Amino acid sequence: AERSADQPGRAVVDFPVAAVLPAGGSGERMGLTTPKQFCSIFNRPLISYTIQAFERLPWIVMVVVVVAKDNHDLMLNIVRKFNHTKVKVVHGGTTRHRSIYNGLQAFSDSTDSSTPKPKVVIIHDAVRPFVEEDLLLKITLAAKEQGASGAIRPLVSTVIATTSESYLDHSLERAKYRASEMPQGFLYDIIFQAYQRCSEFDLEFGTECLHLALQYCGTNARLIEGPPTLWKVTYKRDLAAAEAIIKETLSVSACIIAEAEEEAVELAKTLQKNLNMMETDVIPCGKESNVQYLSKTRNFIHISASASSSLWVLEMVKCFEDIDHARLYPVVIVWVQLSMTKQSADSQETDEFMALASEVKQRNVLLYGIKIDHSKELEQWQRSLERLGQITLVLIRDRNMALTGQMLHV
Amino acid sequence: AERSADQPGRAVVDFPVAAVLPAGGSGERMGLTTPKQFCSIFNRPLISYTIQAFERLPWIVMVVVVVAKDNHDLMLNIVRKFNHTKVKVVHGGTTRHRSIYNGLQAFSDSTDSSTPKPKVVIIHDAVRPFVEEDLLLKITLAAKEQGASGAIRPLVSTVIATTSESYLDHSLERAKYRASEMPQGFLYDIIFQAYQRCSEFDLEFGTECLHLALQYCGTNARLIEGPPTLWKVTYKRDLAAAEAIIKETLSVSACIIAEAEEEAVELAKTLQKNLNMMETDVIPCGKESNVQYLSKTRNFIHISASASSSLWVLEMVKCFEDIDHARLYPVVIVWVQLSMTKQSADSQETDEFMALASEVKQRNVLLYGIKIDHSKELEQWQRSLERLGQITLVLIRDRNMALTGQMLHV
Ligand SMILES: [Mg+2]
Ligand SMILES: [Mg+2]
Repeated sequence: AERSADQPGRAVVDFPVAAVLPAGGSGERMGLTTPKQFCSIFNRPLISYTIQAFERLPWIVMVVVVVAKDNHDLMLNIVRKFNHTKVKVVHGGTTRHRSIYNGLQAFSDSTDSSTPKPKVVIIHDAVRPFVEEDLLLKITLAAKEQGASGAIRPLVSTVIATTSESYLDHSLERAKYRASEMPQGFLYDIIFQAYQRCSEFDLEFGTECLHLALQYCGTNARLIEGPPTLWKVTYKRDLAAAEAIIKETLSVSACIIAEAEEEAVELAKTLQKNLNMMETDVIPCGKESNVQYLSKTRNFIHISASASSSLWVLEMVKCFEDIDHARLYPVVIVWVQLSMTKQSADSQETDEFMALASEVKQRNVLLYGIKIDHSKELEQWQRSLERLGQITLVLIRDRNMALTGQMLHV
Repeated sequence: AERSADQPGRAVVDFPVAAVLPAGGSGERMGLTTPKQFCSIFNRPLISYTIQAFERLPWIVMVVVVVAKDNHDLMLNIVRKFNHTKVKVVHGGTTRHRSIYNGLQAFSDSTDSSTPKPKVVIIHDAVRPFVEEDLLLKITLAAKEQGASGAIRPLVSTVIATTSESYLDHSLERAKYRASEMPQGFLYDIIFQAYQRCSEFDLEFGTECLHLALQYCGTNARLIEGPPTLWKVTYKRDLAAAEAIIKETLSVSACIIAEAEEEAVELAKTLQKNLNMMETDVIPCGKESNVQYLSKTRNFIHISASASSSLWVLEMVKCFEDIDHARLYPVVIVWVQLSMTKQSADSQETDEFMALASEVKQRNVLLYGIKIDHSKELEQWQRSLERLGQITLVLIRDRNMALTGQMLHV
């Protein structure tokens, strides 16, 4: 039942699959700081990224998010703001296991027709946003076949047994052991039964769902090696790591739009060469209404070679709104202004650009400007071109919210 | 033998302590990519940060860095460029254990008086740069007393035993196990003897130094709980995480230098209020020759209220050079130019500023400009002040190398 590379999940998974995301129990153990699942990257809480990783898959029918009662409204706002359509929010218990059990119970309530019982349920952490369809499919199919399945990773450190007085007792042979990670998949009937049968002690102190399925239903989980991106966002530094991964994903491609002037077209081609670490296309200005084109990337470099109106910015942003292109991730527009005569922006121009950037930022579009003078000696022109490439790349990769509306010089 | 908070390590450690940093074996397992210890943050390889964590401690007498033969010159260049004075570079073996053994042998060569045998040797990974004196002291003192000691962390995932066919066998009780991390400390004689006695199999396939000390010398290691920042920089995302930690450390304080004009002094005080998440001092301009003051932080905000000469920049940078202030970390200078009349920078001014920034960047000083107009209505002035705070903070926190020389507007 392994899928081949070109089979979409929908064709393979012909049974209902749902997900349960425990997201925070009572939240009290975290102390005063915001639980990581509610920390934001680009003004969007981590949990929304995780939800999206499931929601985008047509074969996932429902995502049950289990949150502490105190975070119920916060969670509903997130669902609304980021237009999550498959989510049901459920209240958590005082421990991780109780929360998962609550989540599973949402499907057993026969009076609620919005949550029919799934064949397979995937349990996943809200703070592991980078789970791929490939792994979710493997987990799902193995769970269907075997009753239970779980992602594993090699151990990163040696595991040692300790004596009660903090001395080394022995070290484990690494090859025989694995770290148990998420996602895990189960036949719904099996994991629900396991939770019904397990003890209060399990619900209070247990950590491993796979263990419950084994102990209470005799179901041996199939273990599947997952990629390193499965790691759990735990510390503040993990948020920086997650942000870096998202930034990289958002920066693989760009669309360079050149206005009609010959110099603009030429500059576009040079810039394309200097941005060789990204996939870029150069298209003429005016095709901006080509929605299909604009939906292919979230990075746009607009090149104009004379004082030109900024009307295209608002048209473009309107276009993004029509296709809801900037809801989940910010879109970057870098406006490169090639001036043929050495002249600097006046104060009014600067203010207007900043006002425009403020306006489109409200629609999650990050607008930056770069001025480049043509009237320079060759060597200086080369340096300017090089700098143009570097700064364009940095603006796209960083997606810095505070620097929108700035007109940079190269 | 526990140290109290106000006792410096030097007073407690009255015996010679050295460190061995295995940094890459043959490097072949890493494939084509640069091994993480040679990846740079702010143009400085990770391994230099780790070396510095040891070298800064007066009670550490020597740091032996074990590198693959191919990286020998690279490593010597790093030692030279960042002025590491306690480092000896040694060639690695084909496995981690062989590399550590090679490192230890450097001290047993009685013909080389530059590496006298230490009482205690600390073994640490080159890719764990954030080790603190506090932990190194505990590890050292425990090793002296007990013969061996090692840092541990709680397990982040459940550890499971697998059957040969990738099925769950059983899960371990988390409370009884720990992850073995670095640093580890040993009486030199014990760990060297353990390596002399151990088998080829150990040298080829073993991973745990504590295990060797136990098996071959009967020495039970004392285990000491370390902080989460001990984690090993392994994936690309870990580099982003490490960079975020370094950036945060560098951004805790700033010095605001106000030129003599009343408006500049007033603006400095307002900015200080808006930068309340940093520790800031406001000092008058002219005290820049006060070396002691300048060495307290790596962030400077210079405020001028009229067209003013940029001579102070070079003077300041000269000052940093005299105290070697920018060798290990880049220093940020944000020049805030308050203009009393609405006037924009001319093209020549822009070019000169960029040239100045290029020049000082070669000394690892990152110069940015911010223009703020005073001639605005109150509401706009308030917005500008707010933006000034935000952008100053972002420039200091990001330390973006590509944006130096830019004159931003608020
Ligand atoms: Mg579990
Ligand atoms: Mg070891």
